[in-house]
Amino acid sequence: LAQAKLDELRERLGEISDLGRARALLAWDEHTYMPPAGIEPRSEQLATLARIRHERLISDELGRLIDAASAELDSAPYDSDDVSLVRVARRGWEKARRVPADLRAEMTRVSSLAEHAWEDARANSDFGAFLPHLERNVELRRRYADCFEGFEGFEHEYDALLDDFEPGMTTAEVAAVLGDLRDGVQPLIAAIADSGVTVDDSCLYGEYRLAAQEDLAKELVARLPLQEGAWRLDTTVHPFASAISPADLRITTRFDTNYLGTSVWSVLHEAGHAMYENGVPRALWRSPLASPSSLGFHESQSRLWENWVGRSRPYLDQIMPELRDLFPERLGDVDVETIYRAANKVEPSLIRVEADQVTYNLHIILRFELELEIFANRIELRDLPDAWNARMRDYLGVEVPDDANGVLQDVHWADGMFGYFPTYALGNVIAGQLWERITIEIPDVEEHIGRGELVPLRDWLRENLHRHGNKFMPKELIERVVGGRIDVQPYVGQLRKRASEIYGV
Amino acid sequence: LAQAKLDELRERLGEISDLGRARALLAWDEHTYMPPAGIEPRSEQLATLARIRHERLISDELGRLIDAASAELDSAPYDSDDVSLVRVARRGWEKARRVPADLRAEMTRVSSLAEHAWEDARANSDFGAFLPHLERNVELRRRYADCFEGFEGFEHEYDALLDDFEPGMTTAEVAAVLGDLRDGVQPLIAAIADSGVTVDDSCLYGEYRLAAQEDLAKELVARLPLQEGAWRLDTTVHPFASAISPADLRITTRFDTNYLGTSVWSVLHEAGHAMYENGVPRALWRSPLASPSSLGFHESQSRLWENWVGRSRPYLDQIMPELRDLFPERLGDVDVETIYRAANKVEPSLIRVEADQVTYNLHIILRFELELEIFANRIELRDLPDAWNARMRDYLGVEVPDDANGVLQDVHWADGMFGYFPTYALGNVIAGQLWERITIEIPDVEEHIGRGELVPLRDWLRENLHRHGNKFMPKELIERVVGGRIDVQPYVGQLRKRASEIYGV
Repeated sequence: LAQAKLDELRERLGEISDLGRARALLAWDEHTYMPPAGIEPRSEQLATLARIRHERLISDELGRLIDAASAELDSAPYDSDDVSLVRVARRGWEKARRVPADLRAEMTRVSSLAEHAWEDARANSDFGAFLPHLERNVELRRRYADCFEGFEGFEHEYDALLDDFEPGMTTAEVAAVLGDLRDGVQPLIAAIADSGVTVDDSCLYGEYRLAAQEDLAKELVARLPLQEGAWRLDTTVHPFASAISPADLRITTRFDTNYLGTSVWSVLHEAGHAMYENGVPRALWRSPLASPSSLGFHESQSRLWENWVGRSRPYLDQIMPELRDLFPERLGDVDVETIYRAANKVEPSLIRVEADQVTYNLHIILRFELELEIFANRIELRDLPDAWNARMRDYLGVEVPDDANGVLQDVHWADGMFGYFPTYALGNVIAGQLWERITIEIPDVEEHIGRGELVPLRDWLRENLHRHGNKFMPKELIERVVGGRIDVQPYVGQLRKRASEIYGV
Repeated sequence: LAQAKLDELRERLGEISDLGRARALLAWDEHTYMPPAGIEPRSEQLATLARIRHERLISDELGRLIDAASAELDSAPYDSDDVSLVRVARRGWEKARRVPADLRAEMTRVSSLAEHAWEDARANSDFGAFLPHLERNVELRRRYADCFEGFEGFEHEYDALLDDFEPGMTTAEVAAVLGDLRDGVQPLIAAIADSGVTVDDSCLYGEYRLAAQEDLAKELVARLPLQEGAWRLDTTVHPFASAISPADLRITTRFDTNYLGTSVWSVLHEAGHAMYENGVPRALWRSPLASPSSLGFHESQSRLWENWVGRSRPYLDQIMPELRDLFPERLGDVDVETIYRAANKVEPSLIRVEADQVTYNLHIILRFELELEIFANRIELRDLPDAWNARMRDYLGVEVPDDANGVLQDVHWADGMFGYFPTYALGNVIAGQLWERITIEIPDVEEHIGRGELVPLRDWLRENLHRHGNKFMPKELIERVVGGRIDVQPYVGQLRKRASEIYGV
């Protein structure tokens, strides 16, 4: 009875969680199994669930419950489940209340139109057709950011945008990290280009039977230390992972009959996201603490499994029998070293989602810098294609042939998602810091991986990261996990080490 | 502006509809693709959606909107979309408000426990273990029925239970129909037994390759006049059909490697349900008029496609090449007449869901009569097994070996669903009346079916039945469709005709 209001708060937040999870299932279904004719009613169903969830999230009643529950907390520590719940709920409530309903509705409406316009614009490589939509999106995001005037910790307009994806991270902090990252990665790419070494990755391309790729992907996920009976793997167009609950994980992938990579590394990437959600302790389920809200930390998990496990020599060595078994005609005579080199080839290219793990970072930095210039009024939106192309030339030495392969390639700006891109790079950086700690604390982690023993690694991640769920903001979390700030050095060092093995640089 | 309140009502009802449809998707997923570990959070998600939907359904605000919208209706006719919407919404609101939240919660809680107890009790054929749960369910359903004291048209306590599945049908009316049905079917079963004719249905049993059965089921649904791109067929344990929207129909089935029947007739049955939902006009979507609420009428569609199309000679003749193609070793030498006779074999048996279409009705009548006796206090629950077994002997000449194969065979009473069973028989009866009209108005319907042309039949059903959606109660609807009351004669006549062909009676 002493915590009656806290219990009530927990139930209210549980309902809000249920509504979000239900929405996630409707979205998963839309992208996997929904019959195509179902799209219009589905959009209405998704909108209704989002609206009802939002009404509850901003309700006066929830605010009163948060206050009342807060009064019941007494002297529990900052990182206790209850204190964290109230703290995270309050911040979410305060943020959500800042934004008028009509502005939210307008953002949804306009970004939906913009996404359709973007699809056509990209198909025709016609930036001009997309420009008015982009302008409208930017204008609405400015109004959105303005709602947070005076919000604790927000100084720059862009802070408010960042915060939705990376709570508590400021523009200045992200700019510093991404600046360091650029300074670390650019010389490495130059050195690789100058090395004269060319990596032959043709073993990954050419015909790979779809059914065998599906078997492979299922087998690779089954070998991961994901809770048994708590996941599925399905096919979609744009791969994603979704947690219908921490015990109901939907990993999706696509398959390419002419490329083996997606059925290995894209699958491990999405499974990495799923393992994060799966590692959240039971006590935090059905609450805002159950689903980590920092996209950077989420991406650190997908990147860690994709790159530092999945593209490692011991992992590839361990799955080699399976690969040879499924594709004898393609890989029967290929050795692990060849696959390893192909998996870690570095080569500047046009498209972010197809980029290697080194040059990928510059794709992100370019976008982040352009977003900063947009919101600081240092660039006109109509000049974006030129700025994009100039920077691609400058950073990657790549000539952009048309806007479809340049400024129009990603959906994010059409969706109004400014502040999202940098989290991809933060994920790389954080993964590097985690991997450094892991190799210190589990010195034989690579031997484990080589024997297919992935439980020690998972348990380290659970113990050091997953168990916190969404209690902490990224800055607090990195401090707790590695005892320091976000720092690019471990990541850059790891990239250098791999490059030195392959390119001798 | 003249209908501002009506628009507002429509939007509120649209949200309630969305919540119900979202819930249907979560339930479909639970029974098809959900990883097993997801069950507990899923139950909470389902409960939350149901609770929020119900809160909105019984809200004062909805009542006020219904009144205000009603005042805007002016002189539109009874069967207009708007007048029907207000009428159906008002009845739903008035019914939902009658039941206190704590009683509803208790019914849900108790029936959930009862269902688990029933599973164990059935496994052990131990009626005594189930009895306390049954008692609790009956007691709660009595309290539920008592909430409707004085509700328009309710006289008998059982009327309130019936009404949830067959709105507006009274106990007396259903008893009269089912009494006529018993009188029509009993002599027919006796005559068949006396005919000395035995039908060999062994062609349907024995090994049928699963993959080929799946292909067959998909092909049979694809040949039905269901909207393209608006359905799926998936595998489950207990087959059902669910409409996530009228353009997103989820047909499910199970397959039996030793029996061909489910992949033909069970699939057609569920697809019949789906075609009903699919036939509701666009103007009624996202409203309480979109989903027909009479289970009897819904069952009439599944039965019509299953029995009067699917078990007919022309239909079987039409799919025979497919059957022979998929199962050459089993059906290569079997003629249509053999399949036709097997598909229409009549033989008393123990289990309702495995019963033939003639004896099936007595399984229902038995349950209906026992339910009436329960709620009229004419039987003690502990005496149900004896009463069941006596009636099985009396009606079907079958000895019940144990309660698992008797009174414990169905989940309905464990779920507290009293008043549900009779709708299965009403569905048979109504299907008979529809089929009679169809054969008059489309004299060559069987020739159509024999050529695989199912659109004229579907269009007749759309024009005469589906287009009304949920506007009318069963009594009104049957009057509109066939110009009379519910009447067993057409159905009994059709059963007799088929029996005379096969058994010469």
